[in-house]
Amino acid sequence: MPKKIRADEVGNTYKAFVKEAKTDLKGTGATARLRELTEVAITFLDKFATLRELTSQVVGKSYGSFALSADAARLSRPVNTALFDSALALRKSRLLGTEGFAQLSEKQRDKVLYTCAAAFCCANDLIRRDDRKTPGTFFEYYVAHLVARSYDVNPRAKIEILNLGMKATLPTDFIFDMGDDKSKLHLPVKLSTRERVIQVWAHQRVLDGVYGVNRFRGVLVCMTETNFKREEGAVVEICLPDQWTIYQMFIAQLTRVYYLDPPTIYRQLRTKYPFINVASFGTFFAERDALVTSGVDG
Amino acid sequence: MPKKIRADEVGNTYKAFVKEAKTDLKGTGATARLRELTEVAITFLDKFATLRELTSQVVGKSYGSFALSADAARLSRPVNTALFDSALALRKSRLLGTEGFAQLSEKQRDKVLYTCAAAFCCANDLIRRDDRKTPGTFFEYYVAHLVARSYDVNPRAKIEILNLGMKATLPTDFIFDMGDDKSKLHLPVKLSTRERVIQVWAHQRVLDGVYGVNRFRGVLVCMTETNFKREEGAVVEICLPDQWTIYQMFIAQLTRVYYLDPPTIYRQLRTKYPFINVASFGTFFAERDALVTSGVDG
Repeated sequence: MPKKIRADEVGNTYKAFVKEAKTDLKGTGATARLRELTEVAITFLDKFATLRELTSQVVGKSYGSFALSADAARLSRPVNTALFDSALALRKSRLLGTEGFAQLSEKQRDKVLYTCAAAFCCANDLIRRDDRKTPGTFFEYYVAHLVARSYDVNPRAKIEILNLGMKATLPTDFIFDMGDDKSKLHLPVKLSTRERVIQVWAHQRVLDGVYGVNRFRGVLVCMTETNFKREEGAVVEICLPDQWTIYQMFIAQLTRVYYLDPPTIYRQLRTKYPFINVASFGTFFAERDALVTSGVDG
Repeated sequence: MPKKIRADEVGNTYKAFVKEAKTDLKGTGATARLRELTEVAITFLDKFATLRELTSQVVGKSYGSFALSADAARLSRPVNTALFDSALALRKSRLLGTEGFAQLSEKQRDKVLYTCAAAFCCANDLIRRDDRKTPGTFFEYYVAHLVARSYDVNPRAKIEILNLGMKATLPTDFIFDMGDDKSKLHLPVKLSTRERVIQVWAHQRVLDGVYGVNRFRGVLVCMTETNFKREEGAVVEICLPDQWTIYQMFIAQLTRVYYLDPPTIYRQLRTKYPFINVASFGTFFAERDALVTSGVDG
């Protein structure tokens, strides 16, 4: 690991990861670049930033923001302090993208997944002011790479609609095809959902209609639902459980919603009709096979 | 009509219109404020701006941009020069929101509707740089006011979902309830649609599922699908007819899509399966009664 990390090293390592991910998303080259990126981002935060506690208005969770030592007014997005564990992430990030990762305890998986994602997003917040696009792009490749490695399958980003002489393609989120005898995965990835999440259910509806119900299993992966009120220095969580319930009842059925920092209010949706199965993303690595081979309730 | 219109008069007249519209959207008070706003906006453009021709990459249509005389670098959004007719709009805007409006020829209705909407949006573009929100808000109230006056019914912006002991509300676009023996209207209003339009079909799906198919008729109203490439000074139209076809087949069925500046490629969707009925917004005023009393194909 480099002794001293500069801002441009974070940017260059990010670019190398994205380049590999675009070339072969499921490849070990992308895994190696991701590991470097994690190390570079964590080291950058260690060297140049300090974690400051924020007022958390989220019951049962504490949040902090990284502040640049050289410019304390520049704050990163909030991180969940119980999940952010840079020492653990540096020790275990070599397991990301390997079979060994599923052997870690669920708690360790959750922390490593969260820390590796949050570290780059926070470093980028401090380096590139007002850059909203890079963290979103990074997070899509991050999640899609880990899923692609898990199944050893590269995804597609559009799908052909063939129907009685009609021929069209529909742009979608990531689509993973594990072969004819398994369910396929429809994997939308978002830093947070807000009101646009209805698109996810609507895309699932189209896939169900074109290819048959449960042919594609809808698996949404999100980072968090926190929102940082900068003027108050407070962190809130924005959840719309009633709307999710309505979408799940009347548009289509998502099989899983994984979060790296799961909102408690969404986790509770598992226990009452229509039973939306919200879990931590660490769970995926334990149930990835069942997800594409079992029945609807698997 | 005032002889000399200043920038703050445009803003103040806009605020007066929105205030009235929020108080009683279907009321004649809002109609009066809208007429004033049209006159103020057109007069502002006449006095302080000139219409400059743009390179149109849209087959069969010409576009121009208003440029501030005092700062020629400041350009408004493009206007369709065949539809923008300020002299006609000033003569006929007194008919907006009255029964007399439906008596105009369809061509005149289309021009008046387009010019009154475009004039305020363009004036605001010149007065308030980078203000994207005001034109969108204006356009929502503009369309919703004219529809509310047509039916003499005020809309709601959320709807109750009652279902076997469950109780939730769903925020929606405008919902018009004309009474138990008529179809109700689900009226999303957007300056342009882009990729987010799938939300409109998804909301229609929820309404169909909760209340029964065709209980709410989906009527989408849009301004245009043009996009202004400023660096090239060129106007393009962005249409996704294959995606609309897929949404109409597999998510829900919209009854009408009205445009103030209808894209030719969307108009053609009327003539082939699944027959999405795209028309000019002027058509609404001739078919508004049939829209809520006839069968699905009405």
